[in-house]
Amino acid sequence: MSPAGSGGPPHVVIVGGGFGGLCAAMALARSPVRVTLVDRTNHHVFQPLLYQVAIAMLSPGEVAAPIRQILAGQRNAGVLMAEVVAVDTARRQVRLAGGHSPLDYDHLVLATGATPSYFGHPEFERWAPSLKSIGDATAVRARILAAFENAELTDDPAERARLLTFVMVGAGPTGVEMAGAIAELRRFTLPHEFRHFDPRTARVILLDAGERVLATFDPGLSRQVRRRLERMGVEVRLDSRVERVDALGVVAGGERIESRTVVWTAGVLPSPAANWLGAPTDRVGRVKVEPDLTAPGHPEIFVIGDTAAFEQDGHPLPGVAQVAMQMGRFAGKAIAARVRGRTAPARFRYFDYGNMAVIGRNFAAFDSGRARFTGFIAWLLWATIHITYLNLFSDRLLVLAQWAWTYCTRQHGARLIVKPQDAEGPPAAPAG
Amino acid sequence: MSPAGSGGPPHVVIVGGGFGGLCAAMALARSPVRVTLVDRTNHHVFQPLLYQVAIAMLSPGEVAAPIRQILAGQRNAGVLMAEVVAVDTARRQVRLAGGHSPLDYDHLVLATGATPSYFGHPEFERWAPSLKSIGDATAVRARILAAFENAELTDDPAERARLLTFVMVGAGPTGVEMAGAIAELRRFTLPHEFRHFDPRTARVILLDAGERVLATFDPGLSRQVRRRLERMGVEVRLDSRVERVDALGVVAGGERIESRTVVWTAGVLPSPAANWLGAPTDRVGRVKVEPDLTAPGHPEIFVIGDTAAFEQDGHPLPGVAQVAMQMGRFAGKAIAARVRGRTAPARFRYFDYGNMAVIGRNFAAFDSGRARFTGFIAWLLWATIHITYLNLFSDRLLVLAQWAWTYCTRQHGARLIVKPQDAEGPPAAPAG
Repeated sequence: MSPAGSGGPPHVVIVGGGFGGLCAAMALARSPVRVTLVDRTNHHVFQPLLYQVAIAMLSPGEVAAPIRQILAGQRNAGVLMAEVVAVDTARRQVRLAGGHSPLDYDHLVLATGATPSYFGHPEFERWAPSLKSIGDATAVRARILAAFENAELTDDPAERARLLTFVMVGAGPTGVEMAGAIAELRRFTLPHEFRHFDPRTARVILLDAGERVLATFDPGLSRQVRRRLERMGVEVRLDSRVERVDALGVVAGGERIESRTVVWTAGVLPSPAANWLGAPTDRVGRVKVEPDLTAPGHPEIFVIGDTAAFEQDGHPLPGVAQVAMQMGRFAGKAIAARVRGRTAPARFRYFDYGNMAVIGRNFAAFDSGRARFTGFIAWLLWATIHITYLNLFSDRLLVLAQWAWTYCTRQHGARLIVKPQDAEGPPAAPAG
Repeated sequence: MSPAGSGGPPHVVIVGGGFGGLCAAMALARSPVRVTLVDRTNHHVFQPLLYQVAIAMLSPGEVAAPIRQILAGQRNAGVLMAEVVAVDTARRQVRLAGGHSPLDYDHLVLATGATPSYFGHPEFERWAPSLKSIGDATAVRARILAAFENAELTDDPAERARLLTFVMVGAGPTGVEMAGAIAELRRFTLPHEFRHFDPRTARVILLDAGERVLATFDPGLSRQVRRRLERMGVEVRLDSRVERVDALGVVAGGERIESRTVVWTAGVLPSPAANWLGAPTDRVGRVKVEPDLTAPGHPEIFVIGDTAAFEQDGHPLPGVAQVAMQMGRFAGKAIAARVRGRTAPARFRYFDYGNMAVIGRNFAAFDSGRARFTGFIAWLLWATIHITYLNLFSDRLLVLAQWAWTYCTRQHGARLIVKPQDAEGPPAAPAG
C-alpha cells in the first residue's frame, strides 16, 4: 500500500508516536510531503504524568490521547496502528507485522524509544513491573490498591506487613515521584477506609544503587529532595543494588526486604532500531547518529530520541522528553528543507530548559544549570509547564479539574482494580 | 476472622457491591450492627453508564468508584475484596476463595447480581463480548477502536467492510444506547481522522429476536425510538434470532452479516446464589424469595436484585437498578427493625419510577406507565437523574465536565486501546 515515488509528494514515514515522532510529524505540517506515522498503539502517552495513573490520581484517558486525534487537523499526515518488524534500507521499505503490505519511504524517522531494562535479569519483571505504557501503569495501580485490599483481608501479621511495604527501585524522577505519591496516598487518601489496620503504617522504601537521589540534578538539590522524602516518611536507601526480586520482596545490599509491591524505574534499553539498520551502536545499543541525527551512511534516515546516542560537549544527551521533542523538530525541519531544495542544518544542538521532579503536593525541584530551586514555587512551575505541554491533548481542562479536585479533597478519583482476566478481551487487532 | 456471636453487635454480611448491596449497607448506617460488604472487585459500577465507557465517552474511573470510598464515612461498615464460593447455612458462614477464613454472619444479604447469558451458546462470548464489568467495557472499546484502525491499515475491501460493520445483539436499553452512540461516533467524532476511508460509511446494525426495540416500554415509544435510530442511520432488524457468531460475523434469521465487532446485550443469567442455598428457583435460576425477600426457610438470609425472583401483580420484577436499590433498602431496614426487636415489614412492594433510554445527543425515551414521552425534554430528565444518582461517587462534577466537553466538541476523551498483553500485569490479588 501507499506506494512512494509514484509521482506523488515525497513520503515521510515516522515510526513511533512518542514526543519525538509527534514533533517530527508536526514540523512537516506545511511541507509538500505525505507523512505516515506508525505506532503499535493508537495513543500518545504523556510519559511525565504516567506515574499519576499508577497512583490512581489520573485516569489513563487523561495522560494519553489518540495519535490520530492529535494529528487530525494536519491534512498531509496519516496514522497507522501497526507494529514495525524491520527496515529494508536497500528498497527503502518499512516492514509491518501481521502480513500487512510494507510501507515505501523517501525519508524515514525512527523514534522508537526505549523499554525498561532489568540489567540482565528479565525474570525480575514478573515481580517488579515498570512504568512505560498505559498498561504498565494500570497494572501497577491494580497491584498497589490490591495490596491494601489484601491487607484488610489477611489474618497473618507477617503477610500484612509484606503487603503494606512498597519498594521503588531507582531514585530517578519517576521513582522519587512515585515514592512521594504513595507516601501521600497512605497518609491522606486511605486512612478512614480500612477497619483492620491503619494505612498510615504502610512503609515506602526508595532504593538506588547510586549515592544520591535524582543523580542528574545538582547535588544540593538531591540532598533537599532526600530530606523532603524522609520528612514524608519515605525510607531512602542509597548504595543499595538490587540482587534479587521474587514474590516475597527484594534482596538489596545483602538485606532482604519483604514486600508484595515492587516497582521498577531503574533503567531503560533502546528499541531494536539499530538492528533494523545494522548501524553502529553505543554500549547499550543506541544508534550512534551523525551530527545531523541521520544514521551513518543513510542521509534519508533520522534516528531520534531514546534510541539515538548523541554526545554534546562530551556528555551523552539524557533520555528525556525535551531531548526527543527537540530532535523530532530538528528532523522534521531538515526533511522540510531538503524537499524544498534548501540546505538542512548540519548539526543538532540541544538546549536544556531544565529538569524537574515533583514530590507530593506543593513541592518540586527544578534544575536548569542556570537556576535551581525547590519548594512551592518549583511546584507551581511544574504544574504550569505540564498543563501547558498537555495542549497536545484536547482534555487538559479535565486534568486541571481532576487535579484541583484531588488537591482540595485528597480523594483519588481513579482507584479501580481491573483484574487481568476481566481486562482480557478478544485480540485488539484481529488478524486480517 | 471476624467471629460473630462473640458478644459484639450482630454481624451483617452483604455479598455484592452493586446497587442492591450498597443500598442494604447504607440502610444499616444508624443500626447497632457490624456490616461487612464483600465483593470480588474493589469498585461499584454505575451500570446504566457503562456503555459510555465502551464508546469511549467516559473513562472507567468516571462510572465506577471504590466501594470502600463510598462507605468510608459509615463507621459500622467494612469492605472486603474477596470471592465468595459457598454459604454454609447450618454454621451461618460465608466461605471465601483463596484460603481466607470464612465469615460468620447473623444476617446475610445476597446481592450477587447476574452475568451475561448466551442462551446455551457460551462459545459466542469469544466473538461477541457483553457489557457487565469495567473490563468488558474497556475490551469492547478496544475492539471498536481497533476496527477503525485496522480498516485504515487493510488493502482488502471485503475486510474493510467487515471491520466497518458493528452489530449489536439485543435491542434492550443497552443495545439501543450503544447503537445510537456508535452511529454518532462515526458521524461526528471520527470523520477527519482517517485517510483511506470515510468513517461515515460504517454500518451499525441492531438485531433482536423480538418484534420491537425496548420491549419493556410502551409500544408507541418503541416505534418512536426505532424511527429515531433509523434516521440516525442504524439498521434495525427485528424478529431476527442470532444462530451463530464467529470471527467473521453473525448469522441471524438465516442471513449472514459480516462483521468484526459484535456486542452482546441480549440477556442475563442470575448468579449461583440459589446453588449456595439449595433454594427453589424459577426457570432461569433465580431464588424464589418470600414476600419479605428472605430465602424460603431462612429468615436470616435476604436475596435481592437480579438474583431474586419476585412477582408483583402477576408479573416478575425486571432486572434493573431501581428494583435492586429498593430491595436493598428494604432488606437493610428489615434487619435494622429486627435487631431493635421491632417487627419488620412482611411484604416488599416495588414502586416503578419509570424506564429510560437515551439515543444519541438530545434524545431519550421515558416511560413510567403514568407518563411517557420522547425527545429533548426526556434527554434532559435522563441527564439530570443520572447526574443525581452519581452522588454515590465523589467525582460527578468531572462527569458533568466530561459530558459538557464532549457535547461541545464531539471529541470523545477516552479513546484508548489498551492491549490485553499490556493490561496483563501480575495477579491483582497475590495468593496469601
